[in-house]
Amino acid sequence: MALKQGDKIGILGGGQLAQLLIKAANKLGLKTLVFDPNEDSPAFNIATEFICEPFSNQKALESFSKKSDIVTYEFENIPLATIDIITPHCKVSPNREALKIGQNRLLEKAFINQLGINTARYSQISSKKELLEFCKLTASKSIIKTTTSGYDGKGQVVIEPGKINTAAIEIIENTECIVEEFQEFHSEASIIASRGESGSVLTYDSGANLHKDGILINTTVPSKLPKELEIEMALIAGKILNNLDYIGVMGIEFFVTSQGLILNEFAPRVHNSGHWTLDGCLINQFEQHIRAISGWPLGSTNRHSNIVMTNIIGEKITTDIKENQSIYSYGKKEIRAGRKMGHINTIHE
Amino acid sequence: MALKQGDKIGILGGGQLAQLLIKAANKLGLKTLVFDPNEDSPAFNIATEFICEPFSNQKALESFSKKSDIVTYEFENIPLATIDIITPHCKVSPNREALKIGQNRLLEKAFINQLGINTARYSQISSKKELLEFCKLTASKSIIKTTTSGYDGKGQVVIEPGKINTAAIEIIENTECIVEEFQEFHSEASIIASRGESGSVLTYDSGANLHKDGILINTTVPSKLPKELEIEMALIAGKILNNLDYIGVMGIEFFVTSQGLILNEFAPRVHNSGHWTLDGCLINQFEQHIRAISGWPLGSTNRHSNIVMTNIIGEKITTDIKENQSIYSYGKKEIRAGRKMGHINTIHE
Repeated sequence: MALKQGDKIGILGGGQLAQLLIKAANKLGLKTLVFDPNEDSPAFNIATEFICEPFSNQKALESFSKKSDIVTYEFENIPLATIDIITPHCKVSPNREALKIGQNRLLEKAFINQLGINTARYSQISSKKELLEFCKLTASKSIIKTTTSGYDGKGQVVIEPGKINTAAIEIIENTECIVEEFQEFHSEASIIASRGESGSVLTYDSGANLHKDGILINTTVPSKLPKELEIEMALIAGKILNNLDYIGVMGIEFFVTSQGLILNEFAPRVHNSGHWTLDGCLINQFEQHIRAISGWPLGSTNRHSNIVMTNIIGEKITTDIKENQSIYSYGKKEIRAGRKMGHINTIHE
Repeated sequence: MALKQGDKIGILGGGQLAQLLIKAANKLGLKTLVFDPNEDSPAFNIATEFICEPFSNQKALESFSKKSDIVTYEFENIPLATIDIITPHCKVSPNREALKIGQNRLLEKAFINQLGINTARYSQISSKKELLEFCKLTASKSIIKTTTSGYDGKGQVVIEPGKINTAAIEIIENTECIVEEFQEFHSEASIIASRGESGSVLTYDSGANLHKDGILINTTVPSKLPKELEIEMALIAGKILNNLDYIGVMGIEFFVTSQGLILNEFAPRVHNSGHWTLDGCLINQFEQHIRAISGWPLGSTNRHSNIVMTNIIGEKITTDIKENQSIYSYGKKEIRAGRKMGHINTIHE
């Protein structure tokens, strides 16, 4: 059943992605209810309602689910236990399985490989000994990542061949981790895919991403990748979404290497590297997600403009913008190093 | 001085135009405070704050002005006395003169003619005798309009040649009116113009409008008008905005006749016939207005898509939309005949 005017979407997480989902929902005549433990959540200001409680508060979650006509999330690090409290009362989209896989690097890579899609060589790791064994197999750098809870480069340690540092030992002894072979890539690219209730999959054009210290700096469309890689990405996206019986928008990141595409990770949610769609397409990724989870028809993903999306990280938003620039402020009060304060979409020829 | 992050824009009027202005302000990191006497104002739900008081409440208006860093309006029928209460405390953009002229058909036509721009032949009228005299001068139909407070065809009576009806007599004897020669037009067109603090004027492409009973049904871009008429409209817009030292967005409506362009009216605000810009340009008319009144640089008005904007009038908003359609719900609770509930932008080749 499709949501109708005035129905309410529950959103777990109240950051800038929730904020942009709320705007899309509002445009379509839908109400929103945001749940986030952080009282400074930027999405609270524009949500129809909000609940500021821990993700473990069963009573608050039950009330949240009963008030919502559908529940979604802006962030993959939502505890599965939270979802399990909600499920008896309200449908969650994307589904639990997608979230479970998307929040755990080990499950994610196993799932991806099982679909016949390439990932970096990796291994679960919990001791220095295991790390040494893995490093023997590869001549290149390795990268240790926490199995869960990582984002924006948090929880990652790079190790040079044969040089296991203290940071590496510390992280593997204290947290569940995996180690991956570091990819010497030509470029990084991502694709934003969407799947509606009818099972139809639509993808946006791929974007070329530049990261620094694990944080996305900018995304450029068109990505200028060869057409066959663009098609391969779309087919991979279709495979993943269909296999998960996924409803909503997903961001999928790739390394483009001399051996072809290597899938880095996917996020079962709207994605920073899809912010260009806000000014590049009739229906942007946020509205697409809302249309999908609401049972509405998906919108066109055709791109009408060439765009460079640049994140504003850890600095003030100024009025010093050009005619061909569209700026998005997340309205965050406190500026912190590495904190995403907004982004700018710049049109180029 | 340009507004900075977190500064507050006061908006007089809380309808759908205010709603769309609020979304633009929010995107730019600006807060909003809406003032409207109607407790069901659709903009109240998403404004940072709102005040629900009559436009004559001096105390409430003073508080409103002191809290605002700039004041604007979504509707030209704001009493000038309201502006006069605000002015000592806060700047109002567009300025009082533009509002004064824009809300009075007599002043408007005199101003337009004095700039050498064509309007329909018209006369102020307050008796049956004056009406008869005017009708003698023209072989075509005439149209009586209230001098002030008209919108969406409200306060208008058409009279056939030589047939003065009761409705006509009633309106001229009870309200200040003007009578105009009815224009036999090929088409109706409008242009959305903007002027920033630097004095630069930017116009969007003209749209072809279809009205029914005085209410806009749809707008099509491109309008397919000859290029010389498109340029003439832009030049007329520049003349008006510069002459008024106007800051903000203005909608200007024309009749396209065999004698050339006839200016019908202008609205000193964002305009229904500019809703296509929401999906046709990088910077839409609402954000352009906010950028202008906030002292930010204007944005590009280049059009990237062909669009038909269709109003949803007096009916329910359904999920029955196509891939190439972007829908805007104003979230109004009550559906009434002639009430604008939302609009749809449809992309076409």
